[in-house]
Amino acid sequence: MTKQFHGHVLSDHALDQIFNEARTYNGWLDKPVTDEQLHAIWNLVKMAPTSANMQPARIVWAKSDEAKTKLAECAMEGNKDKIRAAPVTAIIGYDIDFHEELPWLFPHTDAKSWFEGDEESRREGAFRNSSLQGAYLILAARAVGLDCGPMSGFDAEAVNKAFFADEPRHRTNFLCSIGYGDPESIFERSPRPDFDRFNRIA
Amino acid sequence: MTKQFHGHVLSDHALDQIFNEARTYNGWLDKPVTDEQLHAIWNLVKMAPTSANMQPARIVWAKSDEAKTKLAECAMEGNKDKIRAAPVTAIIGYDIDFHEELPWLFPHTDAKSWFEGDEESRREGAFRNSSLQGAYLILAARAVGLDCGPMSGFDAEAVNKAFFADEPRHRTNFLCSIGYGDPESIFERSPRPDFDRFNRIA
Repeated sequence: MTKQFHGHVLSDHALDQIFNEARTYNGWLDKPVTDEQLHAIWNLVKMAPTSANMQPARIVWAKSDEAKTKLAECAMEGNKDKIRAAPVTAIIGYDIDFHEELPWLFPHTDAKSWFEGDEESRREGAFRNSSLQGAYLILAARAVGLDCGPMSGFDAEAVNKAFFADEPRHRTNFLCSIGYGDPESIFERSPRPDFDRFNRIA
Repeated sequence: MTKQFHGHVLSDHALDQIFNEARTYNGWLDKPVTDEQLHAIWNLVKMAPTSANMQPARIVWAKSDEAKTKLAECAMEGNKDKIRAAPVTAIIGYDIDFHEELPWLFPHTDAKSWFEGDEESRREGAFRNSSLQGAYLILAARAVGLDCGPMSGFDAEAVNKAFFADEPRHRTNFLCSIGYGDPESIFERSPRPDFDRFNRIA
């Protein structure tokens, strides 16, 4: 039986936690994130929709000192310290050959054949849908009581080499530090655009 | 004063509504979506993070019969009826020249200069970050008690021409129908990947 929630708006508390009061953090409290919490995040991310359930994201959670050091070396100057200090930084990558998994991920039709021999369409689909999954990850981490610090200032080729050397068809999309944010580390909230500026009802 | 939610996990009800029990719908109950609801969705989407607060998404909400007919003409056969039947379908586009807005969106530094003269990096940033915003839109719509039907089966060039003709620097990313989902219209849930299949803790 399908559960539906028609017309039910989440509580202000829930909306504050994942959207309205959540902030991007640049520094972290000295409190670890457990593997169980990373599993809890994934268990939410995987439920959210991707095109043909392609689930192209491939995630490396850099949590050990060694992995953090290696990742920090691939980041822009301003991001190195953030990565070293964060309890964990997720490397959100994607698999250009995600279509190989479609026979079990999308079993009711031959979706693999839609992508065979068309690498450009796979690259576009993997980039779009792993970005969706990265956004789900940000909101899922917040939903389980953690904070995020997403980043795109890094050398993607260097991260591919450092973390996906055994997976030559995987590419890095963006990074997201996760932990308990230090309230001292946030910037002033940047302005947000009103509906009419970037939206149109047709 | 920064509001924080450390260690607080959203209620099962909230997690069910936006992640675990929400489904992709292919058909819709005959119940309209109001402009106020579209504003409520945007007011959540705009709060979620984008790189340098670039907010590249440009959204056309196809709600009139005329707009729905025009959009359905640009869609793959299997999506035409869905678009005509949905109360509204969001065209999630992006502005390749989003950097022109950065002086007010990200006022504390000259972020516009990072992107000037580098259209390839703008295309990549706009595509990645408008995809994030599209994912925020899906979860925001669910958070206000609506259902979604995201789609990428359409002719992007045709949608650009039909809806962004006055904005030659805007491009279509993906579509998302929104309304009160008809429980008869969902497919069986596709399998979801366990943590160990697509994640690695390093």
